[in-house]
Amino acid sequence: MHAITLPSFGGPDVLTWSEVDDPICGPSEVVIDVVASAVNRADIMQRQGNYPPPPGASDIPGLECSGVVSEVGTDVTEWSIGDEVCALLAGGGYAEKVNVPAAQVLALPTGLDLVSAGGLPEVTCTVWSNVVMRAGLSEGDRLLVHGGSSGIGTMAIQIAGLVGATVFVTVGSKAKRNFCLELGAAASINYRDEDFVARVTELTDGRGVDVILDNMGAAYLARNVSALAPDGRLVIIGMQGGRKGELDMGALLAKRGSVHATGLRGRPVHGPSGKGAVVAAVIHHVWPAVEGGVVRPIIDRVLPMTEAAQAHRIVESSTHMGKVLLEVPA
Amino acid sequence: MHAITLPSFGGPDVLTWSEVDDPICGPSEVVIDVVASAVNRADIMQRQGNYPPPPGASDIPGLECSGVVSEVGTDVTEWSIGDEVCALLAGGGYAEKVNVPAAQVLALPTGLDLVSAGGLPEVTCTVWSNVVMRAGLSEGDRLLVHGGSSGIGTMAIQIAGLVGATVFVTVGSKAKRNFCLELGAAASINYRDEDFVARVTELTDGRGVDVILDNMGAAYLARNVSALAPDGRLVIIGMQGGRKGELDMGALLAKRGSVHATGLRGRPVHGPSGKGAVVAAVIHHVWPAVEGGVVRPIIDRVLPMTEAAQAHRIVESSTHMGKVLLEVPA
Repeated sequence: MHAITLPSFGGPDVLTWSEVDDPICGPSEVVIDVVASAVNRADIMQRQGNYPPPPGASDIPGLECSGVVSEVGTDVTEWSIGDEVCALLAGGGYAEKVNVPAAQVLALPTGLDLVSAGGLPEVTCTVWSNVVMRAGLSEGDRLLVHGGSSGIGTMAIQIAGLVGATVFVTVGSKAKRNFCLELGAAASINYRDEDFVARVTELTDGRGVDVILDNMGAAYLARNVSALAPDGRLVIIGMQGGRKGELDMGALLAKRGSVHATGLRGRPVHGPSGKGAVVAAVIHHVWPAVEGGVVRPIIDRVLPMTEAAQAHRIVESSTHMGKVLLEVPA
Repeated sequence: MHAITLPSFGGPDVLTWSEVDDPICGPSEVVIDVVASAVNRADIMQRQGNYPPPPGASDIPGLECSGVVSEVGTDVTEWSIGDEVCALLAGGGYAEKVNVPAAQVLALPTGLDLVSAGGLPEVTCTVWSNVVMRAGLSEGDRLLVHGGSSGIGTMAIQIAGLVGATVFVTVGSKAKRNFCLELGAAASINYRDEDFVARVTELTDGRGVDVILDNMGAAYLARNVSALAPDGRLVIIGMQGGRKGELDMGALLAKRGSVHATGLRGRPVHGPSGKGAVVAAVIHHVWPAVEGGVVRPIIDRVLPMTEAAQAHRIVESSTHMGKVLLEVPA
């Protein structure tokens, strides 16, 4: 098969469409003939040499895909050859074929095309596992999402709506602001010229937000703690602003707050917070909303997988809104 | 009535047994004729001027007491004059009488004397709310308790046993070590000459602990994160080692860990994490174990309340094991 490989680490141009061995289907796995994958920040870090795949995972980038099941492991009963699916991967999505534990596979939502589904697993599983399962976002809560127009951000806006929470976002441009408001955000804060702590305080009558979904790490740590409501939960899923920052535990204690740093990729398949449990929760809670049109994939553009370098450039420039997909050439 | 007052902030000798006005019983409160109260670290910080009581709370120190109900508010149906009780207070325990919301009162456990019950509300409510309600300690988990021989520590050891968790403690002397092991700790680490991260790693075959109950704040922050297991929860309830410390969010993310900083005193009476909810959970889960003798108050000594200064000196010297109680003179 063909896949995007990393002959070396570096800029987007190291991404190379090459011939590689087909994946082998383990007893509890399926092999998917990939239709589409999508770009995640973790792929960029992996390409730069800053995020090695977890032990046992493929060296090929790509944390999600859609496609058609073409092989089924001997222990797998829930999937059959020909099933249209999408999947949460530990890697290997930028390829014509990928093997994945059966527990990480989701049926294609009724009414959705296979290409559009290629960017759905990571955002739905990341938002649901972190914002709902971990931080317990529930009806009436207020959520602040940093980077509201990103793939994660646009899904967080929709899932907050599904749960009955009010969502505020930070964005860096007017176009992104309008996009987020149309998607359901109650307010948008331009991080370039507004102080998000002051705006959150104003928007919540001084109370703060119950949950923050953060991708900035150190750069926002102190301000995020300041923006929390009593019993508030800060969930850090990215560290674009650095990984080490000063935590004022006195300020956190005054709010009885918590700081969580979590990711999806390193989780085991099984167990209460494993990928299988996350996928099962997404199928149960989010898929019906996708099928009902309440939650939809937000797609910035679709590029041929052979142009993965260009797709990475777009995501690195942060000019996109929603997901950048990679379609396997026919 | 008489009470311990703070004519000024400073050393133990500022604590003064004085004549003050009797408390007024609010409609949803009871007044308790105090038999005993107990010393908490927060009382020492309050005495030093570093921990003002929350708005509306008494200026008199004392976060818990036992005694006999002597007045009942017009809206209170669950308590009667003459009931033997103990209570979680927002302040005011170092006194002959104290008013308290009815929701923060607990019946005297069958088989326990009133003096011994005076030091039970704070430790049971603090441990249950933080370790069980907040951090979700459950059967099979491993818990690390810093300061295992303190009032909180000795109760955490017992409650971990009640829940079916394994508990490790840090202590500063051989006598404290033996005391904790007798109470049910599986292992004890002397923080003076042992590295608790290395010992925890060894004791858990490299996995780390699921929950840490910490009173050191900044001084232990990095090491506590290092000692956490995957999905581990660090709960900071004291900051004897400073309030500001560097948090490595990358290290926390690698474990999908969380850092909580919480207290009991500032919580509202009502609501899902309010004092009333904590007290109700303690009555439901811990009181039967106290009545069955499985969980018992650990009392270092009982001093007359008029000798509160001496009681503070003992707690500040950290030579005690368990609680130092203050008995109201006859």
